[in-house]
Amino acid sequence: MLLLVLLFVFFISELVSPVTIHSPSGKISLTFTLSSSGAPQYALRFKGRDVILQSRLGLTAADGLNFSEGFMIEKTDSLVFDETWEPVLGEVKQIRNHYKELKVTLSKSEDKKRIMILIFRIYDDGAGFRYEFPAQEHLKYFIVKHEFTEFRLTGDHNTFWIPGDYDTNEYEYSETRISKINALRGQNSSEISTRSIIGDNGVQTPLMMKSDEGLYINLFEAALVNYPAMHLTADREKYILTAHLTPDAVGNKAYLQTHARTPWRTILVSDKAEDILASKMILNLNEPSEIEETGWIKPVKYVGIWWEMHVGTSSWNYSDVNNVKIGETDWNSLKPNGRHGATTERTKVYIDFAAKHGFDAVLVEGWNVGWEDWFGSWKENVFDFVTPYPDFDVEEVHRYAASKGVKMIMHHETSGSVTNYERRMDEAFSFMKQHNYDAVKSGYVGRIIPRGEFHDGQWMVNHYIHAAKKAAEYKIMINAHESVRPTGLHRTYPNWLANEAARGNEFNAWSAGNPPSHETILPFTRLMGGPMDYTPGIFETKMSFYYPDKKEQVHTTLAKQLALYVTMYSPLQMAADYPENYERYPDAFQFIKDVPVDWDDTKILSAEPGDYIAIARMEKGSETWYLGAITDENPRTMKLPLDFLNTGVVYTAVMYADGKDAHWETNPKSYMISKKNVKAGDTLELVLAPGGGAAVQFLPEK
Amino acid sequence: MLLLVLLFVFFISELVSPVTIHSPSGKISLTFTLSSSGAPQYALRFKGRDVILQSRLGLTAADGLNFSEGFMIEKTDSLVFDETWEPVLGEVKQIRNHYKELKVTLSKSEDKKRIMILIFRIYDDGAGFRYEFPAQEHLKYFIVKHEFTEFRLTGDHNTFWIPGDYDTNEYEYSETRISKINALRGQNSSEISTRSIIGDNGVQTPLMMKSDEGLYINLFEAALVNYPAMHLTADREKYILTAHLTPDAVGNKAYLQTHARTPWRTILVSDKAEDILASKMILNLNEPSEIEETGWIKPVKYVGIWWEMHVGTSSWNYSDVNNVKIGETDWNSLKPNGRHGATTERTKVYIDFAAKHGFDAVLVEGWNVGWEDWFGSWKENVFDFVTPYPDFDVEEVHRYAASKGVKMIMHHETSGSVTNYERRMDEAFSFMKQHNYDAVKSGYVGRIIPRGEFHDGQWMVNHYIHAAKKAAEYKIMINAHESVRPTGLHRTYPNWLANEAARGNEFNAWSAGNPPSHETILPFTRLMGGPMDYTPGIFETKMSFYYPDKKEQVHTTLAKQLALYVTMYSPLQMAADYPENYERYPDAFQFIKDVPVDWDDTKILSAEPGDYIAIARMEKGSETWYLGAITDENPRTMKLPLDFLNTGVVYTAVMYADGKDAHWETNPKSYMISKKNVKAGDTLELVLAPGGGAAVQFLPEK
Repeated sequence: MLLLVLLFVFFISELVSPVTIHSPSGKISLTFTLSSSGAPQYALRFKGRDVILQSRLGLTAADGLNFSEGFMIEKTDSLVFDETWEPVLGEVKQIRNHYKELKVTLSKSEDKKRIMILIFRIYDDGAGFRYEFPAQEHLKYFIVKHEFTEFRLTGDHNTFWIPGDYDTNEYEYSETRISKINALRGQNSSEISTRSIIGDNGVQTPLMMKSDEGLYINLFEAALVNYPAMHLTADREKYILTAHLTPDAVGNKAYLQTHARTPWRTILVSDKAEDILASKMILNLNEPSEIEETGWIKPVKYVGIWWEMHVGTSSWNYSDVNNVKIGETDWNSLKPNGRHGATTERTKVYIDFAAKHGFDAVLVEGWNVGWEDWFGSWKENVFDFVTPYPDFDVEEVHRYAASKGVKMIMHHETSGSVTNYERRMDEAFSFMKQHNYDAVKSGYVGRIIPRGEFHDGQWMVNHYIHAAKKAAEYKIMINAHESVRPTGLHRTYPNWLANEAARGNEFNAWSAGNPPSHETILPFTRLMGGPMDYTPGIFETKMSFYYPDKKEQVHTTLAKQLALYVTMYSPLQMAADYPENYERYPDAFQFIKDVPVDWDDTKILSAEPGDYIAIARMEKGSETWYLGAITDENPRTMKLPLDFLNTGVVYTAVMYADGKDAHWETNPKSYMISKKNVKAGDTLELVLAPGGGAAVQFLPEK
Repeated sequence: MLLLVLLFVFFISELVSPVTIHSPSGKISLTFTLSSSGAPQYALRFKGRDVILQSRLGLTAADGLNFSEGFMIEKTDSLVFDETWEPVLGEVKQIRNHYKELKVTLSKSEDKKRIMILIFRIYDDGAGFRYEFPAQEHLKYFIVKHEFTEFRLTGDHNTFWIPGDYDTNEYEYSETRISKINALRGQNSSEISTRSIIGDNGVQTPLMMKSDEGLYINLFEAALVNYPAMHLTADREKYILTAHLTPDAVGNKAYLQTHARTPWRTILVSDKAEDILASKMILNLNEPSEIEETGWIKPVKYVGIWWEMHVGTSSWNYSDVNNVKIGETDWNSLKPNGRHGATTERTKVYIDFAAKHGFDAVLVEGWNVGWEDWFGSWKENVFDFVTPYPDFDVEEVHRYAASKGVKMIMHHETSGSVTNYERRMDEAFSFMKQHNYDAVKSGYVGRIIPRGEFHDGQWMVNHYIHAAKKAAEYKIMINAHESVRPTGLHRTYPNWLANEAARGNEFNAWSAGNPPSHETILPFTRLMGGPMDYTPGIFETKMSFYYPDKKEQVHTTLAKQLALYVTMYSPLQMAADYPENYERYPDAFQFIKDVPVDWDDTKILSAEPGDYIAIARMEKGSETWYLGAITDENPRTMKLPLDFLNTGVVYTAVMYADGKDAHWETNPKSYMISKKNVKAGDTLELVLAPGGGAAVQFLPEK
């Protein structure tokens, strides 16, 4: 990461409210008001239009501490900040961090003087604010009980929401007005094992909305560190969304020690949906990398023994005995079930495939003992992370992969038993380094131990960061599944490549699945916080391919699976299908082989949440562009100006499109591949089938 | 540990109840009954007298599982077991484990067949029983909700109790009838910071009682593994004590996976108090050592920088700033408070003292950063266990101690933040080995993290064992303070040398202190489970010695402090006073220098809980005997037959006795040292002052 420009301008405002501050271009303004009772409030406008009406700020803490009213303004400070930095991995080569900041120092002196600072940062695409508590005589430790942060909306916006839940974010999205939110729907999602739904009016962030006036509004948080994840509860009559913090085992929200600060509460707003996707505000609100030497952090395109377990032709577990104990069970004496996926032999098939087709790495799940009864019993010592099943020869796999120039990806399923993982983490990471693994997929399926804690609580938030930092000590990259959703921390910990933390492609294998609109919503919601390991690339989309009676299927065409590599940004991407399935479609597979996962530039060409997305990206260190376009259940013809292409260069566009008769449900494998020459200024017409998509490679002519 | 004799005899009983089984000598009998409703019950008799009337057994678990009634007897098995084994460290060289066992296999088939086994072991000094759940088709995982184990007493016994409390066992004892138990008294103990009192009728185990008929009865548990500590609630009208398990953060008691077993519930009984102290039943009910090579486990007599902090002339913390953060605070920039105890210079004084007087090791508390605000804020990252304060040079201390042939004892105060300790444990133990520390005193002051867990809950019980096992991997010995009370696990993990887990000598420095009877009760209660690091040896018993205005004082004479080295068994003993204080009383100090902490034989000469104790012990590998005698607030003359001395040998008895005018309160430092020749068959008269004691060394003449 390199700082390219850095500019500070300070000026001091008066001690009266309201105070209004504008974004660098003036498009967005935020007004801070201290009410007559000393309650801090704010409002946000975009191009002169109200976005957030005057809304409450503040929080309360244990021991009667009230940081929501009775304040005086001690001082206000402002500055302009303009910096350009380079992410280690990313969608673009350089990111500009340009904002105006208003810092309001509030004090109250009921019994003892205490200070709280509100920091607002106003960008041209949104605003963020946080609460800060400097170290001070009468405030050293405090326990947050409630946070009152409000977002008073101007109307009954159309909203893309999932139920507020302390333990999972794997719901499919609902698209309703604020007034129609009914989050108890989530209670029937038996396909999600561990659920802790807040109530009928709770929703998660990032929350994407669209007003009747055509404003796109996204509410979220950035830099979630040492604080619980923020959900929102909706007043469905007044259209007020209020922060709802995930509690801990005893009902407290956060244990803070001054100097303390909350995550940023963020509002993105634009009259163009594309601006929301293009925003780098969340990343900018995070701290620069704490890792100085980042040369070991690499993008990863991988295959692995994984989808076959979701399909059901293989199992994670070696035996069907379902009562085993780490350190006691004699694994060699168990009767194999004959379906175990993670065998040395099968792993070699994937290693050969990866080597042949240029993948960086192979993931193997189910390699380590404990899967027989890993889940559902709130068991603590589920896995030890170092003992392979009898049919998985770690040494031989290590040797074989190295001989083929392929990396292995470790898998650490914690089963939610985080205490167990933490106490074994050093040993587990050391084991990885001994066997040449430099990336790990971690999993958090199930109820958390420490019992009473939730996936989204402060303790777990700190755990995920602890894992990323500890991994960095070992130069290990992380891909965490079933974690809290990311909030841009991959800027600070660039070895934290990706997360799942949403409803991934896997649901298509064994549940009602992800509706065709799903992938058009995720970039507006979950992906606002960081890369997702969505595991695209499924060619055999119907489970009936494996089991004639099965109705489950992926809700996209094959071509859309290709497009997802472009529309769903991640520096870590899986080609999730069986090697055998790819071998049968070598022409379509070529796109997956070619598409990079790290980029020098990105253009959001066209987007509407829930309907469609088209994105173009330029490969890192290359002039080759890639384009992904996807649609929901509706067919769609897109006419995309190729303005992004470098002028004066002729490109060969290799187009992977839906066949004429393609349809996600009835004919998903109909695709056609064609080539033509194009250049900047041309318009590309793409015809997308229902649930379809298109992927295009633009190769500059030599 | 060596098995010397091993004898099994099996015989099969009938399938009807009641079934009665007798101890090897016949002194004790236990009757198992299955009621007409299929509820398991038991009763215990001693020499034909009722001890425990017919009492309920069983437990309930989540999901409606009821293991307290509806049972049938599937089968009963019995055996006689007789083995002699050698503890690594101990009060005696060999321990005989001789019992009859009754194993009752119960089954119930309401919906699905489930099995529970009751195992009773009857010794000549008591009985133990446990619940066992074999691995079975319809019982793999279950969550214990309540345990119903009852102890129905025959009358309103006199009882030595402390309030039932999930978090602390540092109360002083009350001596009342069962009917007069009022455990809410503990609520006013502001001297104990972290308290979670069960209720007004809750008491802790080991519970010592004496019936009006002169029976001594002790209720406790052995082998507390993977289960919460058992407290007792008292029916003060019917004299029924019922198991009360420590809950976890969500109110559950224990998470079990079959094959599962509870700790042993134990009843010791005799008509002689001395038999209670001599009993090895708790140890015998524990599993043999899991550590095969035990040559590195050594007894430890030590001094250290510790009492001076309790007195107040030194501090644990380096600075008086009380808002510091591990990993952030610049410790070198803090202003020293000038009272920091753990300086390199002061440590060298202790090292010199230890070397001069033959102590094995030096403990230094407060050496590592974080003490400025270590306590009371439920803070997680309090200590890192590897960063010394600026004025403590670990390398230099290591070098200097090694040059003097003295070991250093590490100190790991967790402040109750156990998650933090566990995640840093490997690093902390590695740091110890690098710097030549082979023993650690760990501390658990404060509320537990994981928040909602208690010191005595299943999770913490497993933690203490985890720490002992992990330490053993590093060949490190452990001395845990503020932990759950021990239950004989030092047999299984002999590197777990000692615990505090009761009200130690330290309370005398800064609280109402420990009444003169305290040390006559502890061996009947806390010490039933294992060695205690009581930290005796205080010569300057009055805090007014340091601060004229202070009223606090040790509630014993100086001579009694010497006697405690014999009456309070521990293979790890501190000489807790300042080196400077010992230097002023070299004649009395000679006893502390001479007294060993590991023994080949032990004889309980005379004892009455709450009144007096006299014990003789023979030094490991030597013919030298030591005798300790203590009394409560009453003066006492003891006439002790010296039957234990080896016949045919003349001994020089070196007697450290209270002075004629000695009194714990008014004249504690009055003592006299005398010698005389004695032999087996003689009677030794010892005159003990109020709160006094006597220590005697018997040197065989060459």
